[in-house]
Order: sequence, then C-alpha cells, then structure tokens
Amino acid sequence: MTGEASLAAPAESGWVIAAATLPFPPVDSSGEHIQDAPAERWSTAFAQVVREGFAWVDLTDSWLRPGDLSPARVSELAEVLRQEALRPAAISLIRRSVIDPESGLDNLSYSLRTLEVAAQLHCSTVSVGLHRPLTSRQREALWFWTVDEPHDAQDPETWALAVERLSVLGRHAADLDLLLSLEMYEDTLLGTAASSVRLVTDIGLENVGLNPDLGNLIRLHRPIEPIEEMLELCLPHTNYWHMKNYYRIEDSSSGVILSAPTSMELGVLNYRHAVDLAIRHGFSGAFCLEHYGGDGLGVMSTNLRYLTAILQSRKA
Amino acid sequence: MTGEASLAAPAESGWVIAAATLPFPPVDSSGEHIQDAPAERWSTAFAQVVREGFAWVDLTDSWLRPGDLSPARVSELAEVLRQEALRPAAISLIRRSVIDPESGLDNLSYSLRTLEVAAQLHCSTVSVGLHRPLTSRQREALWFWTVDEPHDAQDPETWALAVERLSVLGRHAADLDLLLSLEMYEDTLLGTAASSVRLVTDIGLENVGLNPDLGNLIRLHRPIEPIEEMLELCLPHTNYWHMKNYYRIEDSSSGVILSAPTSMELGVLNYRHAVDLAIRHGFSGAFCLEHYGGDGLGVMSTNLRYLTAILQSRKA
Amino acid sequence: MTGEASLAAPAESGWVIAAATLPFPPVDSSGEHIQDAPAERWSTAFAQVVREGFAWVDLTDSWLRPGDLSPARVSELAEVLRQEALRPAAISLIRRSVIDPESGLDNLSYSLRTLEVAAQLHCSTVSVGLHRPLTSRQREALWFWTVDEPHDAQDPETWALAVERLSVLGRHAADLDLLLSLEMYEDTLLGTAASSVRLVTDIGLENVGLNPDLGNLIRLHRPIEPIEEMLELCLPHTNYWHMKNYYRIEDSSSGVILSAPTSMELGVLNYRHAVDLAIRHGFSGAFCLEHYGGDGLGVMSTNLRYLTAILQSRKA
Repeated sequence: MTGEASLAAPAESGWVIAAATLPFPPVDSSGEHIQDAPAERWSTAFAQVVREGFAWVDLTDSWLRPGDLSPARVSELAEVLRQEALRPAAISLIRRSVIDPESGLDNLSYSLRTLEVAAQLHCSTVSVGLHRPLTSRQREALWFWTVDEPHDAQDPETWALAVERLSVLGRHAADLDLLLSLEMYEDTLLGTAASSVRLVTDIGLENVGLNPDLGNLIRLHRPIEPIEEMLELCLPHTNYWHMKNYYRIEDSSSGVILSAPTSMELGVLNYRHAVDLAIRHGFSGAFCLEHYGGDGLGVMSTNLRYLTAILQSRKA
Repeated sequence: MTGEASLAAPAESGWVIAAATLPFPPVDSSGEHIQDAPAERWSTAFAQVVREGFAWVDLTDSWLRPGDLSPARVSELAEVLRQEALRPAAISLIRRSVIDPESGLDNLSYSLRTLEVAAQLHCSTVSVGLHRPLTSRQREALWFWTVDEPHDAQDPETWALAVERLSVLGRHAADLDLLLSLEMYEDTLLGTAASSVRLVTDIGLENVGLNPDLGNLIRLHRPIEPIEEMLELCLPHTNYWHMKNYYRIEDSSSGVILSAPTSMELGVLNYRHAVDLAIRHGFSGAFCLEHYGGDGLGVMSTNLRYLTAILQSRKA
Repeated sequence: MTGEASLAAPAESGWVIAAATLPFPPVDSSGEHIQDAPAERWSTAFAQVVREGFAWVDLTDSWLRPGDLSPARVSELAEVLRQEALRPAAISLIRRSVIDPESGLDNLSYSLRTLEVAAQLHCSTVSVGLHRPLTSRQREALWFWTVDEPHDAQDPETWALAVERLSVLGRHAADLDLLLSLEMYEDTLLGTAASSVRLVTDIGLENVGLNPDLGNLIRLHRPIEPIEEMLELCLPHTNYWHMKNYYRIEDSSSGVILSAPTSMELGVLNYRHAVDLAIRHGFSGAFCLEHYGGDGLGVMSTNLRYLTAILQSRKA
C-alpha cells in the first residue's frame, strides 16, 4: 500500500471510528499482566469492544504495548484481531515522551519499535505525546489532571530535540506508510494550540500532524485557551483525533474552575461543530474514542452512536 | 384564523415542540451575517433541525431577526420553511427589553414589527423578555450567567412602564391572533415567580402569559426560589415554554453553588413532573427546546425524544 | 417456597431489576397521603413504572409503608400489582434504624411487620438500614447528603444492640424465606466497607447480606474510601443492590469535593465493572434502581436499559 492510499483509505471506506483500549486495565482482576497474558485474554477485551459496536480499535499502550511484543506474539495479536473482525486503526503511546529527561532515548527506541509493529498490523497511524509518567501524587488522586506534573522545558535546546526526535519518528513512519500524530497535552510542547502548530510546522513532514485531544485541556481546573480558537488553529494540521468530553464549570466571580468527564454530546466541547470544521479543513484521518472515569467502554459506545449520527447527518 | 383557533391548534394536532435556532451563530464561519445571507443559508440550518427530528421551529432572533427583514425577504423565509416542511411555532426576541433605559423604545418598535412578521409566518406565539444585552464581561465568560448584569429598577414608574409597553405589545398581538409570552429571567421584573405572576396579572390580557424558562434561574450560582414553588405559581399563567436543564450543585456547609448545562432528563428540574403539572393547570401552548453549551442541537434532539416520550406516556 | 428456591429464583428466571418507588411522593399534589389513598392511586404509580419498562418493583416505604397496611389493604396492594403485572421484588425501609436512640424499638416492630407483608406479597428481599430520619436542616437543603446528620455511636454496646436486633430481623426473615439486606449509609455502623462486612459477619446468618448502595457514599462532599476497595470487600457479602450514580468532582489542590446525581453510565462508579465483579463473587440477588434529583423515574428507565445491556453483553 502506498502512502497516498493509506492516507485516502478512511475517506474511501467511510469514516474510521476506533475504540481506545484505555478502559481496560494492564493488570486484570486475577493479577495477570495483559502484556504477558495468552492471546485469549486479549480476545476477551476485543470481543467486548466489538459487542459495543466498534469495527476498529486503537491499541492504546496503557493496556497492551505492541512495540514490546516478540514477533510471534505480534502474529498472535494480529490473529485474535482477525478472529474478532476488529481492525486496528492505530497504536497510541501514552506518556512515552521522546524528550523525557530520564527515558527519552528509551522512549524513542520503543516508539520506533512500535512503528514497525503498527505497520505489520496494517494500522494507518501511530500517536505519540510528550507527557510524562504519572507521579505518585497523580496516581493517588481521583482525577490525575488536577495534580501538578512535570512541565516540558521551554528552552530552544529542548525544542530542537523534540523537532529532531519526532522527525526521526516521522521519517520512519513515512517509510512504513504510516501517519504520525502528536497528541496535545497540557504543560508539554504540545500544550497550547500555537505551540502545537509551531512544532508540527517545524517538523515539516507531510505524514506528521496533530492529534487535537482537547479533552486533555478542557478538563483542567485552570483557565484555558478559547476552545474555538484551539479548533481553528489545530484542525488544519490534524491527522488523527482522540475524542472525549467534559463538563466545565467556571464561576466568574470566585474564579472556581472544575470539570467532570461526560459524554461527547453533553460536554462543553461542541463535537458536532468541531467535526464539521475539521472536515471542511480537509481532515480525513481516523477518530479514536476515549473516556476516563466510570464506565469508559459504555460511554465510548454511546459516543460511537453519537459520532456516527453526526457524520451521517453531514451526508444527508 | 381566529384567536380561538390559534390557541386551540396545538392541542388539536398533538403537542408542538419547536427547536430554538439558538445554537446557530448569527455570523457563520465564512464571516457572513445570517441576517443578510441568501435564503439558502437559512435552509441549511432548517434542514439540520429537520434531520434532528423537529417539525417546528422557534425563530430565535439571536440567529435571524425576522422583524428586521424586508417583506420580500420574509416571503423568502416563509418559502424556505415550506420547502423544508418546518413550521414556525414562534419568534423569540432575546435581550430586547421594552424598558431598557437605552433602547427600550427601539425595542418596542422592533417587537411590534416582529409581531407583524410572526403573523405573516402563521406563528402562534411571540416571546419577549426584559433582560438586557450581554455586557463585554459576560461575553468573555464561559457562562455569561455567572457574571453580574444590569438589574431592572424596582420603582413603581418602571413597573408601570413595563405594564404599559407590554400591554401595547399584547394588544397588538391579540389583533393579530398571536399569543405574547413573557420570558422569566433573573434580575428583571420577570426574575421571580411572584413578580412574574404580578406582571402578567397587571397586564391582564387573555393572550399574554408567562414563558417559565426556569433554566435561566436554576443555573445561577446563587440561592434560588424552590423550583416546585416557582412551578406552582407560574404554570397556571404559562402560554409558551422555553425548556432547558442544568445540573445544580449546592454544598450546604461551604455555601458553594455551581451549575452545568445538561439534558432535560438528567438536570435538576424534573420536567416529567413539571409538564404533568402544567397540563393539569390547562397549559396548551407550544414547547420550545433550547440548549447552551456544547452541542446545542444534539442535546435539543435528545430532549425532543425525551419530551415526546413523556407526553406519550401521559396519554397511555 | 423454600429458602433455597427463593435465593435461586432470580438467576433461574433471568435477572430481577426493580424500580424503587422512591421518585413518588408520599403526599400527592392534591394533598392526599398515598398511605391512605384508594388502591387506584397506587395503580397509577405502578402503571407509570410499567410504562417505563419495569417488570419488578421495590416498594420503597418513603412512598408507601406496606408494613403499616391492614390485611385488607395488603390484599388490595397485591391485587393492583397483579393487575399491572408488576411483581414486587422487595420492600425497602428507609430511615427506620432498629438502633435509633428514639425510635429503635418501634422501628424493630415496624420492620418485623414489614417482613410479614413482604412474605405475603412474595417478595424475595427486605432491605433495612441504620440511617436516621432527615433533620429539618437536611430537609431544607437541595441535597440532604451535604448536611451533617446524627452518627451512630461507636461503642461496643451499640454494636451489640445492632447485631442483636438485626439478628432478630434476620431470623424472622429466614422463617419467612426472605433475604434481609443491610443498606450501606454514611455515619452509621454500615458506613464503611470494613464495618459493613464486620456487621454482617457478626450477625452470621445465611440469609442476611449487604446492600452496597455505594451511591450513598460516593456523593458525599468529603473524602471517601477508594470505590474499588469498597466493591472488593462488600460484593462477596451482597444479596441485594440499590443502584444509583453520581458525578464526583475532586480538586486535588484546593481539596474541593462536589457531586451531582447522574445516570449509571455517566457517573464515577463503573457499574459495568462492578456488576461483573459481583457476579464473579456469586451475586444472584435482585437489582433495585434508584435516583434522586430531577426526573427520578426517567433516569431509572434509562438505567434499566443500561443495566439490561450490560447483563446481556456478559452472556454474549
């Protein structure tokens, strides 16, 4: 498959809407690590995803790390996906920053391995970000995004390193006919709309774009950029899209700002408008539905019906 | 059509549930003002409303001001509505107070013009309120209702002026076989249940009633009147009904009060109960679904299914 | 019917999902007390429950107190339930603590009478708790759970009294082939997972278990035990289950904690996971759907569809 074909595929065959494996825990109730579990355990999760109506999956590596599987195990993964008739749209790497001061080079290496596996699985996209591992204080909190975390350094050297290493990934992705998507996340070099656009522009590769996961930003208990401005700036550069939504409460007199996870339809981000705007800007990538808090799979399934209805209503 | 027929129509033909055009922006993404746009642009919005299941629309003037259209353009509006098979139930005037110290007389004149157009479009109802234009601080806020705004003066002269000018509107509405509905809104003479009932009683015209848009009040980040008491007082005087709902968080120990927009089913106002109570009090007007924040049209569509189910369940 | 048969019934005939009569007021809009109303009034409520899709009901005594009905009236109740084809799964006694310092003995006597009626109505379960009547300050609040309330004494005498009196109930329930379920509720001896398990263990009767109504706990505006730990501890002892869900907002920097009632799917408690875990722990009791705030019946109906889908997806 050529790069062109890969890019055009989603639009030709209808939209790709993938379920993130984010709601599945990396260690199951019996204490077994999913990474080392027999492929039948993976099947159980995939079957649930399929029962909720999904035809595509994003192999989010908070559950399973395809890039750390042996070739034999990758074949097993491909086989159980095939058996469940679930197609892998993408692999999303979470908290594996290539500029992490401690593990940046390891993460680069892991990301490169993941690109190889993504190509073997016929994914169209790999998503990476610059956010760091959760701190122990974050892990103790009900909502980790309400706890401060390490910030990316703002100096030119860090910027250059990010451009360089993400370019390495981008070029390797291109060689493999893959899109590389950069996930927006607060307090990283992908933490504002302007910085995200500048980073993707500095990288300057056709197959590298943004993953405007604005849910990460609108849930913050602090002032944010206007949502409409973020959409206008980022959507023209978008090639993959993690979607989730939040209620956002702001009290102008006291300055209190709070959020709560909710369905795509009910949250503050108007996805009907955002999707329309993205498509007008030429977006043809895959959508990936995520949800943290409560029944992630259930809300993702509700969101699948919602997003499908929005996309169908555009065609009518 | 006689006034009697106009009043009876909704009940005869099943309930009228209109979509407010509130979710549509007055200036579209290409910078074009809807007011001056070709009628095909109006059609696009109406088609969306129809696709979401609505047979009726409330021409909310935050989107399009029918009262400021030329006769030729009003005909165009009637024609595109006919083409989309969407019937106009009402025109709602937003922030066009006839006692606004600056623009009260202009608003009176505009409201009178709007009544004429409403009659030409065969609407049953025109809704007006006493709330003022959003201040710049309100426009900057995520939720404008958390920012203080101009209050109506509480003196007898202002009250008399409100009664006089709304009576002018009411009598002209009656001449045109229209209902005039007064929208409840905080910090205006229609800001409490008692004041609203007194105002509509002082006006004393059969075709003038209340629009108990309690969503305006229950979303305030300050103490409110008990919802049940507002319903009991206002529903007997109700002739039109803007509906939207909110989560309402109150913390008794700290006094914190916060809200977030949500669906009619999930919010703090029990619409199943309120609708039942209204009908027992003889309500036979039209319902109008609104929603601010996020995907207004999507939530309104969800609310249409909810309200329809409630009304059907009463008949069963 | 033997005790064994009674316990096995729900599993044999598919899961029992009951609607609580909690959303119905004890005094209707005409001022009539439901307790003294003609049975046709009860029918009206039951018909609504049936229209919302329920085949089973929990006679929550905040609406109607079956234990205070005369034998003739109990027959009337059975008859209208039969006419509506609504089967009574359980009776839930609310705020009728058998260790209430003021009314404990009266409540014990009332609870014993209720067991008799539950058996006559062919319920499988009676649920009781140790929470006290709402104080006047609680009744004035929008959300009573944000106001402090009387706490159970923590001394050994109170504990022994609870064990003794609940054992009296449990043994009488066993004689009648009924399950007795103890509802978890903050600031009572059933207020933490550990205390609840210890209490049910100290009682030590096979037909006495827990009702892990964790909605009562997760809505509190103060720190709570980790939800997962509560589930792990309590589900193995669960024989009945009041279900409702809440958004839970926690701000780690300010310590602000707030909640709002929402649907089972959208709230912080992952019921898909919890139900799966319960069934793995051998749960075979009835589910009872509750909801406070707004349209309780509507949200319960939405929750019925959600829970049914979860249970079906487990079988698939």
